[in-house]
Order: sequence, then C-alpha cells, then structure tokens
Amino acid sequence: MKANVYVTLKQEVLDPQGDAVRRGLMSLGFAAVKSARVGKLIEIEFDGKDRATAEKELKQMCEKLLANPVIEDFRLELV
Amino acid sequence: MKANVYVTLKQEVLDPQGDAVRRGLMSLGFAAVKSARVGKLIEIEFDGKDRATAEKELKQMCEKLLANPVIEDFRLELV
Repeated sequence: MKANVYVTLKQEVLDPQGDAVRRGLMSLGFAAVKSARVGKLIEIEFDGKDRATAEKELKQMCEKLLANPVIEDFRLELV
Repeated sequence: MKANVYVTLKQEVLDPQGDAVRRGLMSLGFAAVKSARVGKLIEIEFDGKDRATAEKELKQMCEKLLANPVIEDFRLELV
C-alpha cells in the first residue's frame, strides 16, 4: 500500500523559505507570482491492511513524527 | 490562480532523509513501514491567465528554480 502525506505550514505561520522562493521567481522574471509556500511531501510504502486501519495508522504517524501540530497541518492520501 | 508543485527525488537517487523517517517510524512501533521518501510541495499563487499559459510558466519555474532536473522530478497541479 502507498500513501502520500502532505505537510504544510499553517496559514498564520510565517514561511521564510516560501518567501525566498517567491523572490527568486520574481527575480527570474515571473512577475505574476504573488506568494509561495513550501511544505513537505512524504511518500510512504507499507504492508497492506484494510483502508480504515491504514488511515488510522497514518494519522498517528503524522501526529507523532511527520508533522508538528503546533505549526503544521497535514493531509493524507492513500494511492 | 493557485498551483501545487510536487518535487520528488528520482527513484534511483538515494534519500537519506526518507530513510531517517522510515527508521523513526519503525522505532515508534510502525513496523509495517517499508519505505519513506521525502519531497517538496510548493504552493504558488499567481495572477490568473488562461490555463495553458499558466502551465507553461509553471513548467519554466520548475525547470529554472524549483526542481533540480538532474536528481528530481516534478509534477504540476492547477487548483
């Protein structure tokens, strides 16, 4: 079974990395760029169980290790 | 207009960060995890044009700044 986990900074948290990306893009001539935010994409492969169990375990993984719930949100996708 | 850019290491490139995530998950008791790979998710907001132009510009952004084509693949998604 495969899953994608998307970890993004909460909207209210400043993102200096994203801001550097935005400025980089603008200096390359992409003047239309208004904002950029950088998050993580974690692709996980694991031994298959039923979808419900898998989703529950993935949620625990995010809460315990993959995301920092104070400043980050996460989104799961089983593929 | 909003777009998500997913940047991942090519399959044949070693991913020490992903390996650290896998070992971290295993040591937390998630024994079913077989592999983990870490990539980037870049959320970009830009002034709207038609979809075709937007996709073309985003591809250029990836090739010029967001991804390293030697070791990384990218995937675009207009939202």
